[in-house]
Amino acid sequence: MIASSQKHWIGDVADLLRVGDGFVLADVDTRSTPGYAKDKVQAAEDLSAGAAQLDEYQERLYARSRVDATDAAVLLVLQAMDSAGKGGIIRHVVGSVDPQGIVLSAFKKPTPEELEHDFLWRVEQRLPVSGLIGVFDRSHYEDVLIGRVRQLAPAEEIERRYGAINEFEKRLTDTGTRVVKVMLHISPDVQKKRLMERLERPDKHWKYNPGDVDERELWPSYMAAYQTVFDRTSTEHAPWHVVPADRKWYARLAVQHLLLEALEDIDPHWPAATFDVEAEKKRLAAS
Amino acid sequence: MIASSQKHWIGDVADLLRVGDGFVLADVDTRSTPGYAKDKVQAAEDLSAGAAQLDEYQERLYARSRVDATDAAVLLVLQAMDSAGKGGIIRHVVGSVDPQGIVLSAFKKPTPEELEHDFLWRVEQRLPVSGLIGVFDRSHYEDVLIGRVRQLAPAEEIERRYGAINEFEKRLTDTGTRVVKVMLHISPDVQKKRLMERLERPDKHWKYNPGDVDERELWPSYMAAYQTVFDRTSTEHAPWHVVPADRKWYARLAVQHLLLEALEDIDPHWPAATFDVEAEKKRLAAS
Repeated sequence: MIASSQKHWIGDVADLLRVGDGFVLADVDTRSTPGYAKDKVQAAEDLSAGAAQLDEYQERLYARSRVDATDAAVLLVLQAMDSAGKGGIIRHVVGSVDPQGIVLSAFKKPTPEELEHDFLWRVEQRLPVSGLIGVFDRSHYEDVLIGRVRQLAPAEEIERRYGAINEFEKRLTDTGTRVVKVMLHISPDVQKKRLMERLERPDKHWKYNPGDVDERELWPSYMAAYQTVFDRTSTEHAPWHVVPADRKWYARLAVQHLLLEALEDIDPHWPAATFDVEAEKKRLAAS
Repeated sequence: MIASSQKHWIGDVADLLRVGDGFVLADVDTRSTPGYAKDKVQAAEDLSAGAAQLDEYQERLYARSRVDATDAAVLLVLQAMDSAGKGGIIRHVVGSVDPQGIVLSAFKKPTPEELEHDFLWRVEQRLPVSGLIGVFDRSHYEDVLIGRVRQLAPAEEIERRYGAINEFEKRLTDTGTRVVKVMLHISPDVQKKRLMERLERPDKHWKYNPGDVDERELWPSYMAAYQTVFDRTSTEHAPWHVVPADRKWYARLAVQHLLLEALEDIDPHWPAATFDVEAEKKRLAAS
């Protein structure tokens, strides 16, 4: 399905990006722009048009949740290697929506209290209620990514988590939440270039962490952990999308499209009035 | 003090809007535009220029909080009669900042659990941490506004709350949070016009609540309750600002300015690197 007014795509983008049977992460060209044949300048225009659409869809979703008995919500799960552009997606795609319609959660290193609970405990508390778009900047997948690479839990526990995640996400989709899972995929060379830029600009130093260089040595282990995530958790109800992200403008347009599709699938209409409109006009006029 | 690059103001806007000794709410002209002599079209341009400034200031504030030991944060408290434009401020002023820099809280009718606690309990939990701009869409002031008008608590308890609020806000400002308190002030006629618009447009019906008409009858009581709030809680550390809001474009520009001033007062600089930049460049290049 293609969000109906998104005429700038060639083919079914979501389908092109979706992780299906036999998907091999190593085969993805991180510089490619699946489904899009225009350039960066035109992409900015298309992004801007999509922003207005996204904002209206979200407002409809919210409006309906205030009036009708609906449990429809959207959850965007963002995962990526450092500097792949999660922050830019949040600023430029999510940021075009009314802040009142967004609930954003950044999952960092778990606190001691969080570690006392199952890994899904802290995630559960941050789920969007109906009418909202939830955004996870990192997520429960950290517990099978860095968790696996850095052996932060026993192997059997890591194994258990894939099934637990699938059941958890099934419960979300069964109760009305569209789960949009995105991995922003960059090459190690592009990461090196972006980290170097952070070092070259004093206003970007704060974004640089010497630990990032150490993590780079584990790149192959992370890619293997992502491949396992895709093999085990790209389900029919909550599939993964791998978005080539060497070109930031493409990644933003693609993620915007995936959100638009999720909202179009919900198809939120403005809710009907639950009061007598003409009678209220009279009452208000007399007030 | 005037945010230095805000050249479009005549005089000290914050000072013009600030509630000082002898302030009388009934004397405020809700259609006026204190400190601004240009029109709606020019205001849109000035708002857009200010948006870029606000976004950069917030990013600096955030950057510094990640690196330096700072407790600087901003808290915007928004209070208003229905349809005065709180939502528009959040969408058009707050919405221009990176969503990662904002923590937005809408305070509605308290839940049974919240009612079991002191009125400040739920507010305390939603305070912004350092580096962020917190936005309260309604606030602890509801407990001395609707709380007073609808007699939701005994008179002695309402009385107690003014002092409790002052002490609470003093603790916030003592620990680094700039508290920017804003009442958006409209006339009853403008409210009637805006509510009528909601009734006339099917895509706005969801925003209309028949109870709004009943509340209109209590307008004088609400104004009296606001006057008492100003008399009792416009302190040196956390003064109130009454922003004429019949013209939405003025209110947005004025609130943006108050936020810019709070950030300029903090004066957040990009933090210095906590690592050896040249050594890191070499390490990264070799990775």
